[in-house]
Amino acid sequence: MADIKRMHVAARYSDTAVFNGVVYLAGQVPTDPSQDIAGQTREVLETIDRLLNEVGSDKSRILMAQIFLPDLADYAAMNAVWDSWVVAGHAPPRATVQAQLANPAWKIEVVVTAAVR
Amino acid sequence: MADIKRMHVAARYSDTAVFNGVVYLAGQVPTDPSQDIAGQTREVLETIDRLLNEVGSDKSRILMAQIFLPDLADYAAMNAVWDSWVVAGHAPPRATVQAQLANPAWKIEVVVTAAVR
Amino acid sequence: MADIKRMHVAARYSDTAVFNGVVYLAGQVPTDPSQDIAGQTREVLETIDRLLNEVGSDKSRILMAQIFLPDLADYAAMNAVWDSWVVAGHAPPRATVQAQLANPAWKIEVVVTAAVR
Repeated sequence: MADIKRMHVAARYSDTAVFNGVVYLAGQVPTDPSQDIAGQTREVLETIDRLLNEVGSDKSRILMAQIFLPDLADYAAMNAVWDSWVVAGHAPPRATVQAQLANPAWKIEVVVTAAVR
Repeated sequence: MADIKRMHVAARYSDTAVFNGVVYLAGQVPTDPSQDIAGQTREVLETIDRLLNEVGSDKSRILMAQIFLPDLADYAAMNAVWDSWVVAGHAPPRATVQAQLANPAWKIEVVVTAAVR
Repeated sequence: MADIKRMHVAARYSDTAVFNGVVYLAGQVPTDPSQDIAGQTREVLETIDRLLNEVGSDKSRILMAQIFLPDLADYAAMNAVWDSWVVAGHAPPRATVQAQLANPAWKIEVVVTAAVR
């Protein structure tokens, strides 16, 4: 039986699960929701960088990214931050849809699946 | 070519696909939608238990859970049931967003990916 | 280190990532949004066929399909096209929820994960 590695395990959820060379991250949201969409997107992507690096992956190895935005008017500003974050030649498959999030102050939630190095 | 194992295959969708040690479940919804959010959540999680057990997995081996709630006011009551269901030390990555579901009587839909034992 | 194969790589996202025998596709949307829901669904599913075939997979090998519909009134018409597209005996796990999409003219977005042959 192959083992599952979990990181940042809390009672409700963990941030990371690694199995068979694939990393599954919990939906990441901003910790400082006073920021605008650019700031919140930047913070969420930095969190994803940190969580991926921790288990031997990185943003050039993302297999799929699902982005939830409560307000699609934020789409362009989110994309500006996203585009400057993505590693050229390694942009992952992505899907973006509108959805309200658990905390109304959050302007973005990102779910990432990635490959370990 | 590695084989895909499917369970409960209908014309439109199947409940389970297993490939390379990973189980993919269809979005699970309550069969008795007359229940409140706690009852519907309990029923959905029991269905997930049963589907996972059937293919040699279980709730301690979930890699990612995506939860859709039509009404975010149900978030706390859903979490109370979720928290008592999760195996301590093995809580999976999770993402919860608001979304209307195909049947307006459904108060929750849960999509799970898990590892086989 | 196993390699990731990407197809149709643009600055923002790629359509396809293949890793460890699993294909991850970006959310597929219609290129001709003047069509009704049946036409848009047909076009999206044809695109998915083409993207899967390109990397040695096909619709009989889908592991999970997530469908986003801005208008749940389109559910029955989408299903009619879906049902005639699915390979009998190989219908994949599926989840369908309501969500507004990045372009208001799109009536459907489909996210697919599949196994390589």
